[in-house]
Amino acid sequence: MSDERRPSFGIPDEEFIRGKIPMTKEEIRVITLSKLQIQQDSVVLDIGAGTGSISIECSLIARLGKVYAVEVVDEGIELIKKNIEKFGVKNITPIHGMAPKSLEGVKIVDRIVVGGSRGNIVEILEWANDHLSKDGIIVANFITIENLFYFIEALKEKKYEYELTQVTIAKSKTIKDITMMQGHNPVFIVKAQR
Amino acid sequence: MSDERRPSFGIPDEEFIRGKIPMTKEEIRVITLSKLQIQQDSVVLDIGAGTGSISIECSLIARLGKVYAVEVVDEGIELIKKNIEKFGVKNITPIHGMAPKSLEGVKIVDRIVVGGSRGNIVEILEWANDHLSKDGIIVANFITIENLFYFIEALKEKKYEYELTQVTIAKSKTIKDITMMQGHNPVFIVKAQR
Amino acid sequence: MSDERRPSFGIPDEEFIRGKIPMTKEEIRVITLSKLQIQQDSVVLDIGAGTGSISIECSLIARLGKVYAVEVVDEGIELIKKNIEKFGVKNITPIHGMAPKSLEGVKIVDRIVVGGSRGNIVEILEWANDHLSKDGIIVANFITIENLFYFIEALKEKKYEYELTQVTIAKSKTIKDITMMQGHNPVFIVKAQR
Amino acid sequence: MSDERRPSFGIPDEEFIRGKIPMTKEEIRVITLSKLQIQQDSVVLDIGAGTGSISIECSLIARLGKVYAVEVVDEGIELIKKNIEKFGVKNITPIHGMAPKSLEGVKIVDRIVVGGSRGNIVEILEWANDHLSKDGIIVANFITIENLFYFIEALKEKKYEYELTQVTIAKSKTIKDITMMQGHNPVFIVKAQR
Repeated sequence: MSDERRPSFGIPDEEFIRGKIPMTKEEIRVITLSKLQIQQDSVVLDIGAGTGSISIECSLIARLGKVYAVEVVDEGIELIKKNIEKFGVKNITPIHGMAPKSLEGVKIVDRIVVGGSRGNIVEILEWANDHLSKDGIIVANFITIENLFYFIEALKEKKYEYELTQVTIAKSKTIKDITMMQGHNPVFIVKAQR
Repeated sequence: MSDERRPSFGIPDEEFIRGKIPMTKEEIRVITLSKLQIQQDSVVLDIGAGTGSISIECSLIARLGKVYAVEVVDEGIELIKKNIEKFGVKNITPIHGMAPKSLEGVKIVDRIVVGGSRGNIVEILEWANDHLSKDGIIVANFITIENLFYFIEALKEKKYEYELTQVTIAKSKTIKDITMMQGHNPVFIVKAQR
Repeated sequence: MSDERRPSFGIPDEEFIRGKIPMTKEEIRVITLSKLQIQQDSVVLDIGAGTGSISIECSLIARLGKVYAVEVVDEGIELIKKNIEKFGVKNITPIHGMAPKSLEGVKIVDRIVVGGSRGNIVEILEWANDHLSKDGIIVANFITIENLFYFIEALKEKKYEYELTQVTIAKSKTIKDITMMQGHNPVFIVKAQR
Repeated sequence: MSDERRPSFGIPDEEFIRGKIPMTKEEIRVITLSKLQIQQDSVVLDIGAGTGSISIECSLIARLGKVYAVEVVDEGIELIKKNIEKFGVKNITPIHGMAPKSLEGVKIVDRIVVGGSRGNIVEILEWANDHLSKDGIIVANFITIENLFYFIEALKEKKYEYELTQVTIAKSKTIKDITMMQGHNPVFIVKAQR
């Protein structure tokens, strides 16, 4: 679709080029984006960018800003590049590697979104200490109890305020005019600010 | 906050002026908005607009378009006007009344969002038959089984495609560094298109 | 396990002989059983008995009573018979057919549990009119909005009191000491009494 | 109700004498009981017994066994005694105090159920090391992320197998023949065995 016709946010799942990389589902993605409170000139760091779906949405909102999309899996980086091309965005920098150790080139960011932390969530928060701007916001998604806990504990230790939202989605599957409900995996979304 | 600093969507609940009128919670609001796929020039009809929170968000996305905010409760209409003023938006027309019977002034709309139907969901869909544009989208929220069912049945009869998403949210309440989870009421969100 | 060692209820899923027939999951099964309020001498009708898991549990509680297990699928009836044998219960009568039309042999029942209604939920309630004892209880499980609605409407028409409970379960999957949560399909459980 | 008419499990919430003490809701209670796999001769330890609702249910299943009901709040102990009297059970010993330090009189138990741990969940598991019988089962309910995590970590350290089930319940409230769904707080239920 042409740029004028594109909605300001909420790109449906099927519009992204996807491979075998897991993609944050639409509903989780928009709640995550909403909690990020991205502004036109925000600099955003997307850790565990996967297919780049969140990076693309961020880049469309932060159109005067910049998005770093960090992904360690080869196929992921390829998909991010393909989606950058498909959506014609100019302000995403893909980083092939892991956070925080592959972030040397990144100075100050206004928003950090963590889709997958590979167990480095505490180190990432350590990095944020020196690189997140004063009113910066971190939003991280978790599907495991352990990583959720480690992040919350690190937030407490570093005197962040945080809120935790658990989102459970069920979607219809219509078979012969009958609307069955199918459950998705619940996701924990943590928003943190100093 | 100044216009430049305002995020493109996802206004937190506490930024809206609220009275005793129930307000769609932030997470439900952004999923609803996302499913609406509003474009810059969309004409949007918000039925059961309540405090106007969804209308405000719609008007910020459809900045070259227009939003009709229909609300029957006096206090609601007052709150909508106050929020229009607070957020400085110019493209919302409040309509004090009930849909569809108070919609004489409304010609063609591209998006219909239904926060509360007062049991008129089938008549609203009847009205949409003549007033929703060709690629128009309807998104309606339900908290009762009956109204959900009546809407789905009317959609089937009028040959709409639809998807139903149930969203269950739990939010943290932190007491002395302990993160308790509190459940919210589940909401059914139906997206329909012809 | 020997009879003395068997718990009074709450048989784990894996103890039932299962084929390709869908089985009500443990958590849904025990809530369903709890709402049935089965007594030692209850006569229970299990409609859409599937593998017989609910019938087996009912028969262990209603040990001085009787359970009719109605199932239309051939494989289901075979599994019910195998589970009757495995658990050594004497008070279950399998009925190969559909309710209500295959219920000629059944006179008065104290409890009706509906795991699957094949769209006959309204006819089943009609049958209950003449066959459910005075303080009888019906508990029915639904995964579709339509059948749930039809049942609720029929209950209202026949002046039953009812409560609806929606149960959403997520279970852990542990991978390398990490506890991931996986969502199951939500189930609607209706309990009705006159 | 007379003993013969009482269901084997699943006592409705309203049958218990309650004060201002929070009570585990019916659906959570029956799933908890089911996972405990109590046998006729089981010795059960109920920690954070509250009103005694779970102890009462346990004592009716373990009718040849014994139940210890530990509760620190004065009003709770009073309610437990009143419920013991109301239900006419003989095999519950109330213990006014906190686990594990008030458990000197308790030797070997077959089942431990934890409704509330007052932050002592790790010490309780330490106590279980010497007092839980060989095939013993522990089931603990949590509403906070932190206590859930501490328990899971302690289980891993002590080489227990565990499963985590999160249960989210919504119940109907019927207003003028309209069925609204209201969300309850989600509960995490951990079952552990060596």
